Order: sequence, then C-alpha cells, then structure tokens
Amino acid sequence: MYRAPVADIVFTLNHVAGLSEATENGTFGDLSGDLVEAILTEAGRFASEEVAPLAEIGDRQGARLADGAVRLADGWADLYRRWSAGGWNGLTAPEAFGGQGLPHMLNVAAFEMWNSASMAFAIGPTLTVGAIEALEAHGSQALKDTYLARLVSGEWTATMNLTEPHAGSDLGVMKTRAVPEGDGTYRIFGQKIFITWGEHDAAENIVHLVLARLPDAPAGTRGISLFLVPKFFVNADGTLGARNDLFCHSLEHKLGIHGSPTCTMIYGDGRFGSEKGAVGWLIGEENKGLNCMFTMMNNARLMVGMQGVAIAEAATQKAVQYARDRTQGKAPGWRGEGMSPIIEHPDVTRMLLTMKVLTQGARAIAYSCAHAGDRAHHAQGETARHWQERSALLTPIAKAFSTDVGVDVASLGVQVHGGMGFIEETGAARLLRDARIAPIYEGTNGIQAIDLVTRKLPLSGGDHVRGFIGELKAISADVRASNHPAFGETAGRLDVAIADLETATDWLLSHQKDGDLAGALSGATAYLRLFGLVLTTAYLAKGGLAAVDNGGTDKRVALCRFSAENLLAETLALKDRVLNGADSLAAARSILD
Amino acid sequence: MYRAPVADIVFTLNHVAGLSEATENGTFGDLSGDLVEAILTEAGRFASEEVAPLAEIGDRQGARLADGAVRLADGWADLYRRWSAGGWNGLTAPEAFGGQGLPHMLNVAAFEMWNSASMAFAIGPTLTVGAIEALEAHGSQALKDTYLARLVSGEWTATMNLTEPHAGSDLGVMKTRAVPEGDGTYRIFGQKIFITWGEHDAAENIVHLVLARLPDAPAGTRGISLFLVPKFFVNADGTLGARNDLFCHSLEHKLGIHGSPTCTMIYGDGRFGSEKGAVGWLIGEENKGLNCMFTMMNNARLMVGMQGVAIAEAATQKAVQYARDRTQGKAPGWRGEGMSPIIEHPDVTRMLLTMKVLTQGARAIAYSCAHAGDRAHHAQGETARHWQERSALLTPIAKAFSTDVGVDVASLGVQVHGGMGFIEETGAARLLRDARIAPIYEGTNGIQAIDLVTRKLPLSGGDHVRGFIGELKAISADVRASNHPAFGETAGRLDVAIADLETATDWLLSHQKDGDLAGALSGATAYLRLFGLVLTTAYLAKGGLAAVDNGGTDKRVALCRFSAENLLAETLALKDRVLNGADSLAAARSILD
Repeated sequence: MYRAPVADIVFTLNHVAGLSEATENGTFGDLSGDLVEAILTEAGRFASEEVAPLAEIGDRQGARLADGAVRLADGWADLYRRWSAGGWNGLTAPEAFGGQGLPHMLNVAAFEMWNSASMAFAIGPTLTVGAIEALEAHGSQALKDTYLARLVSGEWTATMNLTEPHAGSDLGVMKTRAVPEGDGTYRIFGQKIFITWGEHDAAENIVHLVLARLPDAPAGTRGISLFLVPKFFVNADGTLGARNDLFCHSLEHKLGIHGSPTCTMIYGDGRFGSEKGAVGWLIGEENKGLNCMFTMMNNARLMVGMQGVAIAEAATQKAVQYARDRTQGKAPGWRGEGMSPIIEHPDVTRMLLTMKVLTQGARAIAYSCAHAGDRAHHAQGETARHWQERSALLTPIAKAFSTDVGVDVASLGVQVHGGMGFIEETGAARLLRDARIAPIYEGTNGIQAIDLVTRKLPLSGGDHVRGFIGELKAISADVRASNHPAFGETAGRLDVAIADLETATDWLLSHQKDGDLAGALSGATAYLRLFGLVLTTAYLAKGGLAAVDNGGTDKRVALCRFSAENLLAETLALKDRVLNGADSLAAARSILD
Repeated sequence: MYRAPVADIVFTLNHVAGLSEATENGTFGDLSGDLVEAILTEAGRFASEEVAPLAEIGDRQGARLADGAVRLADGWADLYRRWSAGGWNGLTAPEAFGGQGLPHMLNVAAFEMWNSASMAFAIGPTLTVGAIEALEAHGSQALKDTYLARLVSGEWTATMNLTEPHAGSDLGVMKTRAVPEGDGTYRIFGQKIFITWGEHDAAENIVHLVLARLPDAPAGTRGISLFLVPKFFVNADGTLGARNDLFCHSLEHKLGIHGSPTCTMIYGDGRFGSEKGAVGWLIGEENKGLNCMFTMMNNARLMVGMQGVAIAEAATQKAVQYARDRTQGKAPGWRGEGMSPIIEHPDVTRMLLTMKVLTQGARAIAYSCAHAGDRAHHAQGETARHWQERSALLTPIAKAFSTDVGVDVASLGVQVHGGMGFIEETGAARLLRDARIAPIYEGTNGIQAIDLVTRKLPLSGGDHVRGFIGELKAISADVRASNHPAFGETAGRLDVAIADLETATDWLLSHQKDGDLAGALSGATAYLRLFGLVLTTAYLAKGGLAAVDNGGTDKRVALCRFSAENLLAETLALKDRVLNGADSLAAARSILD
C-alpha cells in the first residue's frame, strides 16, 4: 500500500526546487518550512489512509451512467466530500474566496500524493483547480462572485471542454457554436468529447468551461471564445435553480483511470431547459478564449506531469516492497539460508534503482517548475520575467519527461513482479494502465517537444536556456569541488552530458533561425528527453550536495552516482539524433505510404 | 484490421534468415520457395480473415469458469476447431503421427501471424506444439502411440505445468508430489498456477505435462520429474474413458490476453476419480524432468519472442493506418488543403519509422534463430554444432529483445492514436495489454539476459559469438562496398556499433573468467539490448542489400538508414553501462533497504 513519501517531497521542495532559500528570504511572506511540512504531512496522511484504499474499487467498478446520471464508484462521492471538507481544494486559491493563498508548489506536492493514491480520483479536482485559476484571471466580477467561493470550497466542481471528434491537438477546427442572446448570455450548441468528470454524483453543481465559436468569428484558433456553462443555474441567493440544457451522453471505456468518468457532453439539443440551447456566460473577451485557456494550460500541464511522478512513486514503492519479500534463486554472493530476496539479484536491483532515479528526477523537475511559477508570481520586472521564462521552459519537460517516466517506471514495476505483475489484483498493472494516458492528454508529449523547441528555447533570444545551462554547469562544478568520493564519476559525466545538451540546443536554435523547421521538429522528442536526463542527474546531484551539507547519509549521493554512471550516457545518442537524424527520417518517410 | 504481411515475412525468411539459399541447396529436401509462399499465404489469409475478427470478443468476454468447466469466448471453440482442421497445428510435427514435417521456421512464421491476429488465441496451440516436441523426444513409444496423433491433429491440446506459488523462476523449490504406484503409473498431488489453456471447451481432451517431485528425490532442480497427466483417460481403442483427478480451480484476472484461460490447476485432491491422486505417466527418466522441459524450452522461448514481433506488427499496421487517415494541424511543408494527415508531422513519422524498424529487426532476429535450429536439425557434426550454437545464442535475444520491442511498439502505437489510443474500442490499448506478459513468461527477460551472458557467450570458449560478430562485420563491409548512396552513413555507424558489441562481449567473457559474476550480471540486460540493436540494423542492411540486388526499390535501404542514423547510437550508452555500470549499482544497492 502506498505511503506518502513526505520527507522526500519536503526535501526536494526545500533543497532542490529552492523553497527553503525562498522562505528564509521571506519571498512567500510568513510561510515557514514548518508550516509546509505540517500541511504536506497531513496531506500525506489523507492520501495514504483515505484515498489510496479506494483506488482499487474505483478501477474495478469505474463510473456508471444511467438515465443521464453518472455514479462514481462506491465510496467515491463521500471520499470527495471529505477531501474537499478538509480544505484541500483551496490550498492555493485566492483568500478572498475562501482559499488559503499558498504558493502553487504546495498544491503540486499535495497533488503528487493525491495522484499516487488514485490518479482517477485526483484528476477531478485537478480540473476544478484549473478552472478557478481561469475564472479568477479572466472572469467578470459577477461570475467570480457567483461561482468562485463554491468552486474553491469544492462544493462544486469544474470541467474543461476543448476536444471535439475532429478537433483534438488542433482546436482551430472546432464546431461548437455560441449564439449571443443580446442579454449578456449566449446559447451553446455542440458536442464535446473526453470531458473528465463531466458528470458525477460527488458535487451539487458542475461548472463547465466550454470553448465555442461565435457567429462570424474568424476562422481557426483566433475565433474561439470561452464560456462558463453551469449544469444548474444559480439563483441570486446562491441556491441552485433549473437545469441547463446539457447532459452526459456516454462514458468512454478506457484502458485506465476507470474511476474517472470521461464524458461525451451534449450542449443545446433541447433535452433540458425550456428553450433549446445551453446558456453560457462569456469568460474574458470574445474570440480570446484560447488566451484564457492558456492561462491555466501551463499549470494543467505541470499537474499532468505530476501524475507521471505520482505513478512512478507508487510503482516504485510497490516494486521495492515486493522485491524485498519475494524470494527466488540465489543471487551472486548471497550467504543467507535458502533462496535470496529477488532484490539481491543485480538485474532486479538495476530495475529498482532505475525506477528510483527516474522518479526522483521527474519530481525534482516538476517541483522546480512549480517553484519558478511561484517566484514569478511574487516578483517584479526582470526577476519576474526570469522566473516566468524558467517556468515556461520547464513546463513541457515537466509534462512530457515525467509522464514518459510514469509509463516506463510503471512498466518496470510490472516486470519486477514477474507473473504476479500481470494479475490485476496485484495492482502493478493498474498503475501502468493509469499512467498511459498522461503522455497523451493536455497536449501530447510530441506537442510538448515542439513547444519546447519552437517556443521555449527562443525565449530572450536563447539567452534564458543558455543561462540555465550555465546553472547546471555550476552544479557539476560543485560536485567536483565537494571531492566527495561517493559521487564517483558524476562530475565528469555530467559535464559531458551538459555539453551534449548545449550542442543540441545551439543546433536547434540555429536551424530554426535558418528556416529548417522540419529538421528541428524531427529531433524535438529526443531533445526533450536529453534535457530531462541531464536535469535528472543535475538535480539529484544538487540534492546529494545538500544532503551531505546537512550531515545526511550518502544515500542521495549514491543514487546520483547510479544515475550518472548507468543512465546519463544516453545523452550522446539523443544529441546525435537531434543533429543527424532528420535527413534519414525525411528520406524514409515515403516507405509509410 | 490486421492484414498478414506475407510478402515481408517471405522476404525476411528467404533473404535475411537464409531460407532461399538453403532451399536452393536442397538442405530441406524438396521444400521449395513456392511451397513456402503458398503455405504462408494461406496461413495469412486464415489469420487475417478468420482469427483476427474474433480477437476483440475474446478480449471483452475473456474465458469463463463455471462448475469447473471453462468456456472460451463466443466463437472461439469453433475457431480453434476450424484452425486445427486446416492442419495448422501439425505443420512441423512428425509425419509418422500425421504432421507435415516442415522446417520449424515455417511454424514460426505462421505463429507470427496467428499471434498478430490474436495472441490470446495463438498461445493455446503454442503449448500443444511444445508438448508434441517434448513427447516425441522423451516419451515412451506407448505414450507416443496413445497421444501424439491426436495432439498433432489438434483434436487434443496440451499444457505445461511448471509454476507453483513459491516456485516461479526458481523451479527447484516446487512441492507437487508424484508417488509411484508400482504399475508404471504415478499419482500426482499438488497445485500449479499460471497454466495457459489449462481447461477449455475447444478440444475433447487436454494433456497436461506436469513437473513433480518423487519421494526421496534429490533436493533442487535435480529432483524433478516430468509426467503426462491427461484430463480424460484414453481407452485401448483410443476412445476417452473416465475423468482423471484434476481440475481447474480458478482463472486469473489478467491485464491482457483475456481470451486465454490462465488456470490454477489442482491435482489429486479427490474431486474426480475413484481413488485420490491424479494418474500420470513418466516422460523420460526419473529426476530428469527439467532436461525434458529444456528440449522444448528453446523453441518455447522463440515462440514467445514471436509474440513480441507479432504484436509489434499489428500495432504498427494499426498506427500507420490511423496516421494516414487522421488529419490535424499543418505539418511543415504541407501544401494540401486544410489540415495534414498526422503522418506528415515529423514526430509522428519518427514514431512510425521507429515502430517499423524495431518490428522488422525483431522479426529478422527471430527468423534467423528459427533457421539456425532448422539447419542444426538437418546437419551433422561440426556443422550441426555451429547451427546449434547459433540457435542457442540467438534464442535469449529473440525472446527478450523481441518482447521488449512488442511492448515498446505497442506503447508507441497507443501514442500515435492520441486520445483514441486510450479508448478500448480502438484496439491499440489491447495490443499493449496483451504484449506486456511476453517479457515475463517463459523466463523473464532478466533471466534471458543472464542466460545470454553466462551460458551462451561462453559457447566454444567464446569462439562462436566472435565468429558471429565477424559475420556482422562482413555485412557492414558489403554495405560499404555496395556504394549505394541511400544507405547514408549505415556502414560507418554499423562498424562503430559492432565494435561496441565486441568490446562489451570481451568484457563480459573476461570478467566471468575472473569470477566477477555480479559485475557481468549487472550489465546483462544492457548487453542483450545492445546485441539486439546491432542485429536489427545489420539484418535490415542484409535485407536492403538483397532488395537492391533483386532490383527492388530502395525502401528497405531507407529504413535501414533510418535505423542506423536514428536508433543505433544507443549502443555506446549500452556498452558503457556494461563496462562501467556495476560499481555504482553495487554502491547504491543499500538505499533500497
């Protein structure tokens, strides 16, 4: 059973992402390290003791649709209400609407734990948190006054309605229509698919944020507007009124996250309401809907990245426990009686250490990304811009690298369990099934790689990424200067890998400048992984140095060394693919016809 | 829907594995290329048109247990009977018992297609084919006369009973008992788990091959004997008699291959039969049961490797088709109207080409392994030994590399489908679920790597693998000599990768000689993948050269070049892990405590 790794999480926040320095400097007001630890300890308790025990039944029962109503798995609606009653939904929400206004990284850390305990459960609130953010940034005061407090408390939940059957990665071709009524409201007509928690029985009301196209709107993504479309109208006194003209038409039968209802939503077909058309209110300006969505996109992508971290953590814990308990054969050098625990077999040790490295690396990247966002939020001018750029640069890596890690680590977890890993009751297979969606939704990992290469590397003319690479070199220099023998070859290998990153970065920037977009895109995925691997070892090194400074054991250093000496050399192949892979890719394209 | 790639299969058999040379030389008697093509064309038709359409219902319904009887999914029992009536079960079985006595590689190729169409279906006959082999090699004449013809025809099926709850990879600790009755029979008592097709409704009788321990047998693997234990006794006239004392206690609830009943079998608890104890007959000698099993182990491992190839092929076909049809966004350079098919986006092209390369590489390795076995079977003396060693060397690679490829390619296939990939009705997710067992059963891939490093590299004192590496160098030299520009940098890159393989091979041989077993085992999995990647490009090059010689298009050459310039550079990192990874692995072991 999952146990929230609160100590690891707090350590990474403080000593890798930079929270302890920020709290000591008063960057986040009177937020103290003690408070952070207290909050996360309680979140860890709730995740381990309350959420995790209901994960399996959610997977087994899924969500069930009958007569347009969706029932979550047994115990889930109550679990959600206890969770929101605990105040977890409003951790970082504005205090004016009942939230606690804490830095976002606390939410990110807490959501790691909710997702480790049950990704299908955590994905629901993830959407609500995103909607709060969009509404706060772009909603009218009237909309905020009507909806925000109930969303912050979690009494109501929210959804994001983007995808249509023919409009997924490319939202420009969506067809859902919004017709102005002349009274400030709009009538929405259309079908949206893949709507997470689009209908369920855990909250009194569901607030849908829906992208739609106004009459005569410009073609493409510049003609999309964002609307708030509640399931139930809200009366002036805050009570719920009539039902709006929208409903859940069907639920998807998915590979994983069975507990999460993935809905096809129909707006405006006249099933509900006195007049045909779902009534919605504009959020932000007409035709600027994608801008509003982008406000929360970065955080949403980071939150999905956390799902990768979360699954990896849960899978690692499970596999380590099994490998300690299961005995089979005799490992080299085993002197105990009978068979050795399989954890002693070098190949099993290798799998488990690989899982640990990737999990901790992905966590460090995601928390550093969250921290950058928080710093940007609490800064001005150049400093704010620096942290905004850091957050923007790290977001696609936090999303894509971490979710690939989630799948890879969950798959290794199945392998460690041997035949039992293939049996559903063991639970390792569920983690793999759940993990598999994260590289797809919220922008596929291929799209993240394109974003990294074409939009993030050019920030400040390439100076931001170059400055970041300089910081990584400094970490390597610190490792060398520490003279700590347990780091082994870390410094030298990190230098080589950072040089690979630098070369690949320069190549991508210069090729884009020269108009070779296809060339740059051919190696984008390889580049993103290269960046993720370098950050993994660099951040493990940063953590290792901090642990040694704090008089800790060498465990973090040993893991860093394993990362450097067993996993980091892949960067050379990845750099090679960036620099030299495009021509053979283009030449072979036609064999697919 | 899957279409059997018969032309690709026949090409690989003929020009990569070496079948056309062997048939021209008369190595396999009067077997002609035309006959090979005719058989595989018909197998392809049956797989595509008869088996594939029933895959989905098998996945959805699974196998159902009621009152000790197992019912396969709707239509499956009939499908099995039509399949065996077509003679497919006896393709390579001895002619004396009704088989067709064809080279094993034909069966391997046919089983690729059965598995692509439905892995859950094909796994049943795979077990029967293995049992026929064991019985033919080790069974008494009486047992052969009673059982072989019906197993060859497929009227009866067979199982292998090895695993017990505490005895998986380590069979030495199994507890199932066999008590001699003094009349040539034995009574079997015990529980076996993970028994594939242990009970079902597609055949009149099921013949269980069961490993058990005799009273006073030596401890460990040297005290295990093999028994034939039929579900129904066979009367002297060949009709079926009474039920034996064995039954299926439960079915596993698995991640994939739902259509295949995975049974817990109980022997000798008195539920059936007049006297307690399942009646069995010894196969081979007492306490030599594992030797008998090893007879079929190599082929069984190759057959599981084929499952990896098969899933990869099916996943690739599905993804290519989707990527041609699905339009989204505009790829660089797209001049068509509206959105481009996603196949035009470089990152999607990359995924599809990677899938193609890995599928064709894994196929070439598996067929080459099968061919080596056939050559050994039809040769004498030194020649036979050469081919036996080649078959032995390639088997763990064919099993582990190909099944890892199956999982990786199926996962890429899900990714290409985007959100639809996560929806079960699409079918891409099923392939990933099915694929995930293959790296586990029939010896985990970690065990294959240990086998490769500790048992196969030392064959002929290391001379066999060195000779093989020499052959690979010759392929690279042929590429260079061809001067074909479409090969790009293939020759140079292949030389480097082969040198990596050679260095890693020498290191593993010398470190084992020096007693550093833990060091050798730490890098075994990396080494196996290194070998597989080198073989992939080398065999694609061999195929490319043959295609050019035969006046074919450059398609095979272009794919080979993509392999060399995009995937092969990983060998450097893998070699590095073999040579330099063990120390940091050992140093970090304790952090898992």
